[in-house]
Amino acid sequence: MASVREVRLKSRPVGTPTRDNFEIATVDLKDPGPGEVQVKNLWMTVDPYMRGRMNDVKSYAPPFALGEAMQGGAIGEVTASNDPSLKPGDLVQSMFGWREGFTAPAQGLQKLDPRGLPVQAFLGAAGMPGLTAYAGLLRIAALKDGDVVFVSGAAGAVGSMVAQIAKAKGHEVIGSAGGAEKVAFLKEIGVDHVIDYKAEKDLNAALAAAAPGGIDVYFDNVGGAHLEAALNSAKLFARFAICGMISIYNATEPPPGPRNLAQLIGKNIRMEGFIVSHHFDLMPKYIEDLSGWVKDGKVKWKETVFEGIEKSPDAFLGLFTGENLGKMLVKLA
Amino acid sequence: MASVREVRLKSRPVGTPTRDNFEIATVDLKDPGPGEVQVKNLWMTVDPYMRGRMNDVKSYAPPFALGEAMQGGAIGEVTASNDPSLKPGDLVQSMFGWREGFTAPAQGLQKLDPRGLPVQAFLGAAGMPGLTAYAGLLRIAALKDGDVVFVSGAAGAVGSMVAQIAKAKGHEVIGSAGGAEKVAFLKEIGVDHVIDYKAEKDLNAALAAAAPGGIDVYFDNVGGAHLEAALNSAKLFARFAICGMISIYNATEPPPGPRNLAQLIGKNIRMEGFIVSHHFDLMPKYIEDLSGWVKDGKVKWKETVFEGIEKSPDAFLGLFTGENLGKMLVKLA
Repeated sequence: MASVREVRLKSRPVGTPTRDNFEIATVDLKDPGPGEVQVKNLWMTVDPYMRGRMNDVKSYAPPFALGEAMQGGAIGEVTASNDPSLKPGDLVQSMFGWREGFTAPAQGLQKLDPRGLPVQAFLGAAGMPGLTAYAGLLRIAALKDGDVVFVSGAAGAVGSMVAQIAKAKGHEVIGSAGGAEKVAFLKEIGVDHVIDYKAEKDLNAALAAAAPGGIDVYFDNVGGAHLEAALNSAKLFARFAICGMISIYNATEPPPGPRNLAQLIGKNIRMEGFIVSHHFDLMPKYIEDLSGWVKDGKVKWKETVFEGIEKSPDAFLGLFTGENLGKMLVKLA
Repeated sequence: MASVREVRLKSRPVGTPTRDNFEIATVDLKDPGPGEVQVKNLWMTVDPYMRGRMNDVKSYAPPFALGEAMQGGAIGEVTASNDPSLKPGDLVQSMFGWREGFTAPAQGLQKLDPRGLPVQAFLGAAGMPGLTAYAGLLRIAALKDGDVVFVSGAAGAVGSMVAQIAKAKGHEVIGSAGGAEKVAFLKEIGVDHVIDYKAEKDLNAALAAAAPGGIDVYFDNVGGAHLEAALNSAKLFARFAICGMISIYNATEPPPGPRNLAQLIGKNIRMEGFIVSHHFDLMPKYIEDLSGWVKDGKVKWKETVFEGIEKSPDAFLGLFTGENLGKMLVKLA
């Protein structure tokens, strides 16, 4: 593995990204120096939040640099080691995604024990997307007995875990997704009321019909019209975990917020945004709970897999057209 | 006091209310039956939330009925009693505002001990507006040491108490209000940075200049552009207490929300609406704290007083053109 391919940001997208914003380059890997290892990546993840890093604006993660390989989560296998903590064959988790391999200090990598799960699960259900669902639902939205839960983007990597965690805890769940295949998946995992937002003319009416008594918790992956409908259906003291707003990530002009935001007041609604990195302390407890749910057959997940580094831009672009059912992944080896 | 005047809602306003939406009627008061008292009102309050009750929509308070006297806070004096719990001369607080007097069951009235304060203070600083400030700042926004506080509508009944409570607790406070007189008042009560929103072309820039390090707490009485500016200036983990949105109460079409709502996510902002009636448990502690602050000269308040029941519609309408400095009140006797 002397040379590997990597994906670079060629130009900053304006609005919806296209294939032309990316370029693929081949680079030589240097041999690991003292304390370093060389890794062959097996899987990489593409996630909606990466769209924000393609803009040249300060945010919670720094912008991707033009002409350089992008960063992102990856699972790889150590192929050469110059550090006692890792040996060839070890699995590692890193932020060196968007490339087939890399040489880096062993210290910045996380050794992975797959505990019987497919390794790529640690980029999805058993990784950041799963923890995002868990932290958002239990800590941010403070889920409590009897809560009716609404989740948008419910067939996605985060949303499908939100729906299943809520079901595993005995809640009534309304999930929104687009298209027949996703609707079928949501029914399969036990979502009580499925809204196909692409088929519905009136999202407000659809949510009101699905939850005639209103909702207590809204887990927002989408923003826009979904957030407005959730405000309309919110009960007194509802809690909204604001995780993502994929409906507006590609907007060139900032779109207006919901017209009914004043409902926060009369309904005493709490709306809280969050980034999973502030909740890593919950990871051990989450993995423990997840193992139990998997064993009891209460949680499963889907993957949409693109093969080959050259397909990673397509995988990423597919997030915004809703091509993924469950976690969107790229298999690199 | 056989007959009294009262103010009725004659027609439901569309957009900004006008004098024509109100009518004044004279009614005879019946003598108090068993368990009842007759009360002469001394003061009544007009508040922005009443605008919502003029619409025929379900909200946290039921709509005012057409052709009937409106409800609202009032302070009065018992003139005749047929109940052992109250005697002529006793002061009472009630929701029978918008009228010069009334006959009602003693049980629904609250006997008032003015504790050395002017009685009308119990409609303002020592009443619901003051408690709104206290609960919103301390419980909803969870004010903590070192927080930089931004309050809009800062010269109003609620806002001026928010500013002073925050100052009394040692915080840096930025207050926004409109016009030279209000700006002068805010400086007088120790607000560190005063923004005259009527004079500022760019509220975002004005707030960024007043709080170059950002804000930790925003107390929103206004909504609209103020909320958008607060989101732009919010620090990580900022808390917003959403108390009112007077900028949109008279809108005929629901206005769009802030265009930058997605900042909730990256900044982990908590935004929480509230109604003071869910926080009455804090009243004893608030009155205790307030007494201390008044004694130490840390808190004072202004009143804008209209005289006579016939002026109450003008007092109410003045809330939306910003005519009040501090609490808007109507003196009835």
